[in-house]
Amino acid sequence: MNDVIFETVVTTVSPDGTPHVAPMGIRYREGEGEVVLMPFKPSTTLDNILATGHAALNIVVDTRVFAGCVTGRRTWPLVPTQRIEGIRLASALRHLELRLADQQDDDQRPVLRMAVVHEADHAPFPGFNRAQAAVVEGAILVSRLRMLPAAKVDAEMAYLQIAIDKTAGPNEHEAWGWIVEAVAKHRARSGEPS
Amino acid sequence: MNDVIFETVVTTVSPDGTPHVAPMGIRYREGEGEVVLMPFKPSTTLDNILATGHAALNIVVDTRVFAGCVTGRRTWPLVPTQRIEGIRLASALRHLELRLADQQDDDQRPVLRMAVVHEADHAPFPGFNRAQAAVVEGAILVSRLRMLPAAKVDAEMAYLQIAIDKTAGPNEHEAWGWIVEAVAKHRARSGEPS
Repeated sequence: MNDVIFETVVTTVSPDGTPHVAPMGIRYREGEGEVVLMPFKPSTTLDNILATGHAALNIVVDTRVFAGCVTGRRTWPLVPTQRIEGIRLASALRHLELRLADQQDDDQRPVLRMAVVHEADHAPFPGFNRAQAAVVEGAILVSRLRMLPAAKVDAEMAYLQIAIDKTAGPNEHEAWGWIVEAVAKHRARSGEPS
Repeated sequence: MNDVIFETVVTTVSPDGTPHVAPMGIRYREGEGEVVLMPFKPSTTLDNILATGHAALNIVVDTRVFAGCVTGRRTWPLVPTQRIEGIRLASALRHLELRLADQQDDDQRPVLRMAVVHEADHAPFPGFNRAQAAVVEGAILVSRLRMLPAAKVDAEMAYLQIAIDKTAGPNEHEAWGWIVEAVAKHRARSGEPS
């Protein structure tokens, strides 16, 4: 596939109504009015969608959600959705409500085609911010710490730090702080030199 | 200043109506309904704003505009603005029309406080894309090629290439191609090993 992958946040509920917030790279199928999700197996997001048949896609630029979810901070302000019995992030600039239309099972990442049943704008997109992009990269790095050599992590963190120093606001500084802390904790646990 | 800097595209016209397109990092002053521009001196954007008193701020996710403007591709589809006698990018997801409210001169980067006189949404923001962020970083790299050692440029390009390979669509691949070409041309001119 040559489709663009967008970094979004998928919010779901379990059958008993417990909310779950998970960053996820997704694809749009523009002509079809569909979004393609490929949640990992096993995952709470996958279980919830298969059980309830729906999910909300949140377009977010508050990168604390991305950095928070990979560093144990999964509780974010939520508001009810309109057309599905679910929830979305209060901080979403925009959200789409999705119903499961088709699934292709897979050992690692089933492909879920989700039909867009509702969409709403909540706040304008202010433009690209280099620090926000750096936090997203840092969050991905944190999720892969066990697979990466320390020197590579250090080099990437040093590179990303430049955009933080030059273009971040308070939210991005807070998110970046969580990432720096997670890297340090991983080092302490694994006994690698920091 | 601890304000977030957003990477946008500023479009201006000269007194005789010649359009000019320039990527620019800007700040919002939310409470004031203002945008702060700091164009370099000398620059066509600065000359145009001082001469006409206005500019348009374009929120763009088609990164070909960013990569194009630093590689000699400054002609992009434009449409007339509504409240000022100017132009905006046809590809803007959103644009703001600005009038010069106050200026603080400076030898390198005068500070222009611009009042927002009109704003309009044209297309929804689809979410973060890592390849788009990589193109923005690559465009900044190209604009600084003369100041950077070849090894540093190579390391950054290799790092950014990962996000391109994983998450780009056709627009991002085209934009990235222009950046790769500009780095190669710079090497050929400067006689550095490529």
